[in-house]
Amino acid sequence: MRLSQLFTKTSKNVPADETAKNAQLLIQAGFIHKEMAGVYAYMPLGFRVLENIKKIVREEMNAVGGQEVMMTTLQPRDIWEKTDRWDDKKVDNWFKTKLANGTELGVGLTHEEPIVDASGNYVHSYKDLPFYTYQIANKFRNELRAKSGLLRGREFLMKDMYSLARSQEEHEQMYERAVEAYYKVYDRLGLGEITYRTYAEGGIFTSRFSDEFQTLSDVGEDTIFVDEAKKVAINEEIMTDENLQKLGLNRSDLVQKRGVEVGNTFHLESKYTDALDVYYADEQGEQQSIVMGCYGIGVSRLMGVVAELFSDDKGLVWPEAVAPAKVYLVRIGGDDAVKHADELYKELKGNGIEVLYDDRDERPGVKFADSELIGIPFRVTVSDRLVEAEKYEFTPRKSGETVELTRSELFAKLN
Amino acid sequence: MRLSQLFTKTSKNVPADETAKNAQLLIQAGFIHKEMAGVYAYMPLGFRVLENIKKIVREEMNAVGGQEVMMTTLQPRDIWEKTDRWDDKKVDNWFKTKLANGTELGVGLTHEEPIVDASGNYVHSYKDLPFYTYQIANKFRNELRAKSGLLRGREFLMKDMYSLARSQEEHEQMYERAVEAYYKVYDRLGLGEITYRTYAEGGIFTSRFSDEFQTLSDVGEDTIFVDEAKKVAINEEIMTDENLQKLGLNRSDLVQKRGVEVGNTFHLESKYTDALDVYYADEQGEQQSIVMGCYGIGVSRLMGVVAELFSDDKGLVWPEAVAPAKVYLVRIGGDDAVKHADELYKELKGNGIEVLYDDRDERPGVKFADSELIGIPFRVTVSDRLVEAEKYEFTPRKSGETVELTRSELFAKLN
Repeated sequence: MRLSQLFTKTSKNVPADETAKNAQLLIQAGFIHKEMAGVYAYMPLGFRVLENIKKIVREEMNAVGGQEVMMTTLQPRDIWEKTDRWDDKKVDNWFKTKLANGTELGVGLTHEEPIVDASGNYVHSYKDLPFYTYQIANKFRNELRAKSGLLRGREFLMKDMYSLARSQEEHEQMYERAVEAYYKVYDRLGLGEITYRTYAEGGIFTSRFSDEFQTLSDVGEDTIFVDEAKKVAINEEIMTDENLQKLGLNRSDLVQKRGVEVGNTFHLESKYTDALDVYYADEQGEQQSIVMGCYGIGVSRLMGVVAELFSDDKGLVWPEAVAPAKVYLVRIGGDDAVKHADELYKELKGNGIEVLYDDRDERPGVKFADSELIGIPFRVTVSDRLVEAEKYEFTPRKSGETVELTRSELFAKLN
Repeated sequence: MRLSQLFTKTSKNVPADETAKNAQLLIQAGFIHKEMAGVYAYMPLGFRVLENIKKIVREEMNAVGGQEVMMTTLQPRDIWEKTDRWDDKKVDNWFKTKLANGTELGVGLTHEEPIVDASGNYVHSYKDLPFYTYQIANKFRNELRAKSGLLRGREFLMKDMYSLARSQEEHEQMYERAVEAYYKVYDRLGLGEITYRTYAEGGIFTSRFSDEFQTLSDVGEDTIFVDEAKKVAINEEIMTDENLQKLGLNRSDLVQKRGVEVGNTFHLESKYTDALDVYYADEQGEQQSIVMGCYGIGVSRLMGVVAELFSDDKGLVWPEAVAPAKVYLVRIGGDDAVKHADELYKELKGNGIEVLYDDRDERPGVKFADSELIGIPFRVTVSDRLVEAEKYEFTPRKSGETVELTRSELFAKLN
């Protein structure tokens, strides 16, 4: 895409009402627009990053057999009363609204109940199980405070997957397959090395621990204790001697860290399915309970985590897998540079390489500064001097080290 | 995908609480689940249809230079007060909700105000214009009645595009380019022949007519008068002698029809941009008003229209462009049939052909009935007899006429 046509612009001013680095940088670079605290719109560059993260998450959920659906935001009261999660005294972060006739509705904050309720249309016999289903959709949570940019939203994009199994054993296998898929997602996002499976509270419906996936970061809200050798961690909230013993962890092996929760997986047992009266008949025709798991990944939060962690004093430093483009093409100079840059732009696009083409009539310094703020992985510069020398300047955003390359060397780097 | 693994099932029972054919068929075939009146969840097959429609819409909006974004559902009051569209007496179909601190919020029913407000961050000079931006996202409208299935939702998926231009002339050109893109969308969906550009009321903010895109259907809510020769129509609501004359239409050339509005395009003049204080400086540095257009396509409504129009007494008849798969592969018989069908399934998938593989242990009659209800364009049958004869049964859903094909004939039909 040509920067002369992109409708967003970068800004030199740090937004005064943002304290979180991720929001500051993403607003300055034109990726997001703040609608209100905890509620952000995604502008073209930000939309592309979200789509790239969604693609990775979707591919890994599909790889374990996840069937994608789209549940509704508007929620009827009755299914939530069956699990006792309607009352604002029980669940304190609902947004509620009303139909014209006065009927109270919920604004979807999670989707266990509607998924189980819809499954009830289709699940009758042991032949109808097991399965995974998931969606990638906005959730709405009425948080008292929302000061961490994309790390804690009132409206945020989430992938939520659910597994319905015929037995505890089948559930355990599905649960571990989902956890494996999670590792793959974090690896592909470049977060694998610093993201730990972390034992945490299981929630109100189970005595089991849940697993959080915590990415190490000083801005994380959670305190975790990491066992580097075992590549696992434990959340401070459950760190008792009894639990450490149960989990086979030694206090002396643990190092205290801050983490951002970028995913979680829960054992739900049969609490939701039983409450919503969804059972299956086994091979003997006997009614049996369904064992359920749920698996969340904060898609927009991941965008915030990546922005927060991969940045420097000049701006964002996107990993290739999620960057809104691979190449930032800077054009400097007269007709020769324009002609060569136009041709290179076409050719790179023809090779399936996404390019942000800075074709604006701006000073080189402005273009370089924008390329650093926006944080595209590779900058390629075309100038009159370089055209004459039959060279291209090539600058990885991460290292900032510029080299001059011939045409074939450039394509070798980018392909 | 293997039908033995698909978690939805077809149902023989017509849902008692649905009067609209599109909703009846889509629920019976397992494409959608009704959450409440006018609010439907999309199950795996329905999700695929939506994605196919989104892909077509997205490609055509990108082709005119549309820049995709994702605006927010939660809406702050202030920007809507500036255009006097906050008060429930002025706009009667808002869903409203509240922050924990009592601040009232809107639940996005349209997005002119937030788009203009966000654009104000970036638009200052004539160099920053013109542009198109669009999103594909859920809208929420507090309709009193919602009995038409996907044709009138309280929560529904919509593509909304906006153009911001520097002059009336530039606006007119952008408006007509958007209309051309709309024709392409309807053509690709197989609705081109029966969809008419229809003159209609322009709304409260302009004296100009708007354009509706009306697809002919007996279940349509609108009465329109079609000029077949000119391939345009006029909505009954503006059919006066004065307007006919203005539009160059003769009453005697017009035929009365029912239509479903599958899109609309509006001239918004400068009412939103002026109200939200978004202007640009021209080449002389003078402040100028921005001329705006908006362009809507009901994505989930289109799914309902296609389901309603392309169906028969046996079920759905999807056009290839939006079908959840191209081939419904039926396996009948013993080991030979299983082996051959498994191989054909792999091979078709390897050729990039989407297949619903009916690998269930069900009677042939059940499989054939499901293939007709689900409405995949081509059914291919593999049985022991056919394997021995080295043939495949091939049945287009539309004609229902079965022929026996050799392997090479089959692949020629499907590629």
